[in-house]
Amino acid sequence: MAKKILLCELNVSEGRDEAKIKRITEALTSTPSITIMDVDSDADHNRSVYTWIGEPEDVLAGAVNITRRAVEEIDMTQHHGSHPRQGAVDVVPFVPVRNVEKDEALEISRRYGKFLGGLGVPVYYYEEAATKPSRQNLVDIRKGQYEALAEKMRDEEWRPDEGPFAFVPKSGATVTGVRFPLVAYNVNLRTDDIGVAKEIAKRMRFSSGGLRYCRAIGLALEERKMVQVSMNLTNFEKTPIPVVYDLVKTLADSYGVGIADAELVGPLPLAALEEVVRHSLRVRGFNMSQIIETQLLD
Amino acid sequence: MAKKILLCELNVSEGRDEAKIKRITEALTSTPSITIMDVDSDADHNRSVYTWIGEPEDVLAGAVNITRRAVEEIDMTQHHGSHPRQGAVDVVPFVPVRNVEKDEALEISRRYGKFLGGLGVPVYYYEEAATKPSRQNLVDIRKGQYEALAEKMRDEEWRPDEGPFAFVPKSGATVTGVRFPLVAYNVNLRTDDIGVAKEIAKRMRFSSGGLRYCRAIGLALEERKMVQVSMNLTNFEKTPIPVVYDLVKTLADSYGVGIADAELVGPLPLAALEEVVRHSLRVRGFNMSQIIETQLLD
Repeated sequence: MAKKILLCELNVSEGRDEAKIKRITEALTSTPSITIMDVDSDADHNRSVYTWIGEPEDVLAGAVNITRRAVEEIDMTQHHGSHPRQGAVDVVPFVPVRNVEKDEALEISRRYGKFLGGLGVPVYYYEEAATKPSRQNLVDIRKGQYEALAEKMRDEEWRPDEGPFAFVPKSGATVTGVRFPLVAYNVNLRTDDIGVAKEIAKRMRFSSGGLRYCRAIGLALEERKMVQVSMNLTNFEKTPIPVVYDLVKTLADSYGVGIADAELVGPLPLAALEEVVRHSLRVRGFNMSQIIETQLLD
Repeated sequence: MAKKILLCELNVSEGRDEAKIKRITEALTSTPSITIMDVDSDADHNRSVYTWIGEPEDVLAGAVNITRRAVEEIDMTQHHGSHPRQGAVDVVPFVPVRNVEKDEALEISRRYGKFLGGLGVPVYYYEEAATKPSRQNLVDIRKGQYEALAEKMRDEEWRPDEGPFAFVPKSGATVTGVRFPLVAYNVNLRTDDIGVAKEIAKRMRFSSGGLRYCRAIGLALEERKMVQVSMNLTNFEKTPIPVVYDLVKTLADSYGVGIADAELVGPLPLAALEEVVRHSLRVRGFNMSQIIETQLLD
């Protein structure tokens, strides 16, 4: 039986009170059969981000445990911080990593949403779990932040997907759903001409005619006296990393600019490398099950 | 604590008698905490090849268990088969896959050799475990096969590294040691000119001036009306797959020939892909610990 891996990245609006953070964290660490990848508390943001993986049911249990504690501990009427936020438990994406179909992740996310609704917290589903197009993007749902919630809760447009259709001052509202693993891929160019990076980013990104699952911006790297095409790939199966590299290279060539190097930022599923081998080494039929270590994941 | 993975590929000289094979196999499958990757019995070769992985101590326990049974069951005075062989337990390489240093693998291989010597079987160490240059290659040690052993055992040159310096008719002799994971990489060219494949293979392989850890031959793929540069990379850290690909491509270009596709044959350690990402996507600092699944291997 192939091992399933679901990832949860849970954002809570507390990054300063160490005693509270400790109690919230313990609710997660005491959950059996999950692997915690990262706990990142930021006092300036006044926010903590928890990332863990495991079998879907175990990952859901972790989310339920930490959420119950965070909803008790955190009072949004007292919250200030530099990061946009709307709820005590702010955003909870579930990300299928390995052998988890979208539908299974959606079911987990809905069960989590119903649990949270049952605690009396308004819940919005986003990304793959969105119930209407205006709720696909987190930025749209969180517009106006916590401070706008009292007003929005009087508007039928903002009726929650789960929980009370009412402003809940202590907890605010939570956004949860399913998104695909994001690949953050940055390519650094041997020029300090920011115009070149911006032009290439424009050609790369979906919104201005580029690749379907590519977001891109051009940035200056002041210290290195270079520029960067900074990209997020939202579906690495349909817009593979090596194809993105080749297109950036072709566009850079057309400006007479070379590629210095590149970065892959943050965690990646193993599957994101499958197309790298297929494309770059021309091994069309390559399958990750050839990798010895995957035997220990099955 | 990072999980260690050692691989053992054990070759026994029995591929026909199903009852014997079953009893030998059971000695391996009853070993706890190992993952058996492959069992391949070939009646024509009259040989069975067992491949398993696990923590070094567990892998050694598996080798000891299956060897004790195979030495009991197999009588080399009765053995005939098309594959070169010298012993009931013929060849036993230990291969470091993950977080295992060469020295640790060498120690396992020597403990295995001493165990087998203690059973009264002459043992030769080969590859990284070889005690002199003439014993590095299996082909050199196995020259003349089982039938030559009685004669060789009178020659000081063939004094075994472990076990009796005597011809043991029932068991023959065993070769064991440590080798690095082998990458079998074949590149198919869009031509039926076998001369091109042979010329490229000559430029690629170490023995005629090519890359240090590359063996290569040119082959015809009759059905596809193509030719193939068929390569074994014996150290993928020092002679990485993407560098090999690029050099084959450059050489093929010089003959006006394109690359159709390529193959990676058999199991590969995850580490073999690290340099693919670094080189092909220009992510110089890429490290496999960024891959989410590796969290479950630590």
